Amino acid sequence: MKHALNITREQDFAAWYQAVISEADLAEESGVRGCMVIRPWGYGIWERIQKLLDAEIKATGHENCYFPIFIPLSYFEKEAEHVEGFAKEMAVVTHHRLKADGNGKLVPDPESKLEEPLVVRPTSETVIGTAFARWVQSWRDLPVLINQWANVVRWEMRTRMFLRTSEFLWQEGHTAHASADEAREETLKMLEVYRRFSEECLAVPVVAGEKPENERFPGAVATYSIEAMMQDGKALQAGTSHFLGTNFAKAQNIRFQNSAGEQELANTTSWGVSTRMIGGVIMVHGDDDGLRVPPVIAPYQVVIVPMLRDTDEDAAILDHCKALALELKALSAFGEPIRALVDGKSAKAKRWTWVKKGAPLIVEIGPRDISAGNVSLIRRDRLYDANGKLAGAAVSRGDFVAQAAALLVEIQDALHGEATARLHANIVRGVTDFAGLEQHFARGGKFPGWVEVQWSRPTGAGLEAVAERLKKLKLTIRNTPLAAAPADGTCVFSGEPAVERILIGRSY
Amino acid sequence: MKHALNITREQDFAAWYQAVISEADLAEESGVRGCMVIRPWGYGIWERIQKLLDAEIKATGHENCYFPIFIPLSYFEKEAEHVEGFAKEMAVVTHHRLKADGNGKLVPDPESKLEEPLVVRPTSETVIGTAFARWVQSWRDLPVLINQWANVVRWEMRTRMFLRTSEFLWQEGHTAHASADEAREETLKMLEVYRRFSEECLAVPVVAGEKPENERFPGAVATYSIEAMMQDGKALQAGTSHFLGTNFAKAQNIRFQNSAGEQELANTTSWGVSTRMIGGVIMVHGDDDGLRVPPVIAPYQVVIVPMLRDTDEDAAILDHCKALALELKALSAFGEPIRALVDGKSAKAKRWTWVKKGAPLIVEIGPRDISAGNVSLIRRDRLYDANGKLAGAAVSRGDFVAQAAALLVEIQDALHGEATARLHANIVRGVTDFAGLEQHFARGGKFPGWVEVQWSRPTGAGLEAVAERLKKLKLTIRNTPLAAAPADGTCVFSGEPAVERILIGRSY
Repeated sequence: MKHALNITREQDFAAWYQAVISEADLAEESGVRGCMVIRPWGYGIWERIQKLLDAEIKATGHENCYFPIFIPLSYFEKEAEHVEGFAKEMAVVTHHRLKADGNGKLVPDPESKLEEPLVVRPTSETVIGTAFARWVQSWRDLPVLINQWANVVRWEMRTRMFLRTSEFLWQEGHTAHASADEAREETLKMLEVYRRFSEECLAVPVVAGEKPENERFPGAVATYSIEAMMQDGKALQAGTSHFLGTNFAKAQNIRFQNSAGEQELANTTSWGVSTRMIGGVIMVHGDDDGLRVPPVIAPYQVVIVPMLRDTDEDAAILDHCKALALELKALSAFGEPIRALVDGKSAKAKRWTWVKKGAPLIVEIGPRDISAGNVSLIRRDRLYDANGKLAGAAVSRGDFVAQAAALLVEIQDALHGEATARLHANIVRGVTDFAGLEQHFARGGKFPGWVEVQWSRPTGAGLEAVAERLKKLKLTIRNTPLAAAPADGTCVFSGEPAVERILIGRSY
Repeated sequence: MKHALNITREQDFAAWYQAVISEADLAEESGVRGCMVIRPWGYGIWERIQKLLDAEIKATGHENCYFPIFIPLSYFEKEAEHVEGFAKEMAVVTHHRLKADGNGKLVPDPESKLEEPLVVRPTSETVIGTAFARWVQSWRDLPVLINQWANVVRWEMRTRMFLRTSEFLWQEGHTAHASADEAREETLKMLEVYRRFSEECLAVPVVAGEKPENERFPGAVATYSIEAMMQDGKALQAGTSHFLGTNFAKAQNIRFQNSAGEQELANTTSWGVSTRMIGGVIMVHGDDDGLRVPPVIAPYQVVIVPMLRDTDEDAAILDHCKALALELKALSAFGEPIRALVDGKSAKAKRWTWVKKGAPLIVEIGPRDISAGNVSLIRRDRLYDANGKLAGAAVSRGDFVAQAAALLVEIQDALHGEATARLHANIVRGVTDFAGLEQHFARGGKFPGWVEVQWSRPTGAGLEAVAERLKKLKLTIRNTPLAAAPADGTCVFSGEPAVERILIGRSY
């Protein structure tokens, strides 16, 4: 069976990932170190993510704002752990003017040196916390529930498109509350929003849980994540939600008068997901023919390809296709109008262009289809039949229109089901000691998946020792699943009585 | 008549503008030089602008992408005029790490100095042009029609919220075409999109025209603008569209093989509008009680204020209000569901909060209204009656619901009509010589508006001399209106035969 990409997942997963990004026109290297260009099909997926997630964020009471991209260094000096976590990867603005040097080359004008350098935001707790300090005086001003869609910069040494880029796009929610309990509740509420969004919109099943102490967001009291399993068995942290306690409130001076008239520190949270999610979608749903975009987030759900042949008939074929698109757009799937496109370009091999991009339904229409009242339908999630033959089928136009919405739902469910089955099949339980762990990940299989083990939840140096032992196996603790069964055994690391279960795996 | 702001437009227009921004919760100073925080009500207006304009940009065939925020200095060196125009106001990233100095203060780590400094994009012609050069090989690849929504940074020395901030949000469209004619057509098409958007969505009448040579975008062959008249008579350039000819194609090497097999340079365009538009909305529609938001771009079109009194009745009042909001949301105005909000906060003076924010319709409901089957309706565009009394009126609930959509349309039209009348009344024609121009703008009136005069369209040094003479009067040429009558007289500057008509005024 010949596939559309010239590399398979089996051959080289990392190279396959790059091939999908390139062949599906999702993104490309920009020529600017560590930054990518997100192309229309990739950005279209991001727009769908933004639209759907934004609605959820607003439905849970949050309002969008916009805060400055620049953060004065002094803002960072106030929260030591936070600086520690980000200082090594910050883009620093030091000048505000260019001039030509002696050789006509542009250089920063020394006379324009800033008194206080500015950092390009790697995350906005410090600058948003400073605003919260202005906004919050009394318990009546709480909670403050805000979100922003923005670009952020973290100067990564090794970058990989969508997964780890110097600049990326994200949303970051920031909230302030009168009590720790309320802030904790908010942290978990938004984690659940992410979990549901990932499952229902991205068709990406995830495990929601708490990160271990050593993997917390710098400055957080507790960090929670959703972890998705890629097709190479590695974990992708696809979203995080942080309970910050009063750490940032102390640093940024977010205080309020409680109803008894006393001054208190607010409790804050932050939570975010980014364009990284698109990397997850690729590695969960892609196949050897390219991407398969879940219909809910597909920029176009149905792509209609008129089979043009540079003859007089072309105009009639195009009209026929446009009429079909209009008919589909008047229908609704997942509570929204169906997104249909007629690809009227004269380019060849349009079928394979859309297969690689992963449009859920591809409909080809030529003169013979029109006279027979048919369309030729390709369902992207089932590209080949049992014999490995391309499974395009002639369907009557009327039947297709009548079934289109249901088909899209079926495809969404099929992708989710496939990924869920893979996730469940590849979380191994029953490993009870470190030797077993070593053995599992050393067995040479290409798909070691994750292992759920029990542990005694060591902290400080004890945890560091555990992390070191895991690091030698290229492993990390992903999280303590919220839905895991209670501990009933011994710690896989120490043999002591266990207190909870954790997921261990390789990761991006 | 007492007003909600403690300053009027008449007293001090600039201070009034700041007061509206603050009292309407639109934005605030961030503490970061020249950057503002856009608060939920201001950002909500921006979201409406984004949503509506994005639909127009897509309807005209453009696709959204995302390009890097950082631009290497070398990209700028290729287009001399472009550098010249922007070099003086660029934020320059020179380091990628912080470290603590001897005193524990954070400083850029000297060891992290970048080999080639990066500019934070002031506009993206250079970086997008570089991508176009990769994308375009043949005439079949043209036109390329893309847009991005992004933040940009121009290091302004004197900033004013929304109008001129170091960082601002905008969309920038960039296109490449096979011929100059097609690119010119695109330039004018997008100018028309902006003109219609401004008139129909912002209710801001504008004059579309070509900027004089000395006011062109750096590197452009022709720049067009829409100019809006503020309530102090000054002009605000609210959007621009540039025909770039082959200037950027030469610099970025955007070449294609034409159908005859020859290599040609592409012709490119760019066009943008920004958060500046919100400044225009404030200065066109604001009054001495705050902002009046045109219903099409109002985050909420109807704000329902339950008159709560901390009694047992409160729950029933709230329920009544929520039911009304649901009923309104099921209706449609301007082709979208009506946006209604119940402001259930226990804060006082909510009426005036929403008056200052400029919600188009404010509905107050207390126990007496409920028993009488009424609502108390305030129409923000007609706050006072002929006697200067607050013009809130009891209306039956049923009548209100039946009329709500029509009322919103009426308010939109009223705001547009008021601004259009002001614009037309304050473009003075008939000034035929420079003395007349001086006299007009020297007359001490607070509202000199604009003057439409005829000129001979000098270029180079001749134009510079004209610009100098105008500068002494604090005037600039705004544009050559596309819809102006042909010239039939003499040049106001030289007495020579005129070739066209131009608008002259003070500006932001």
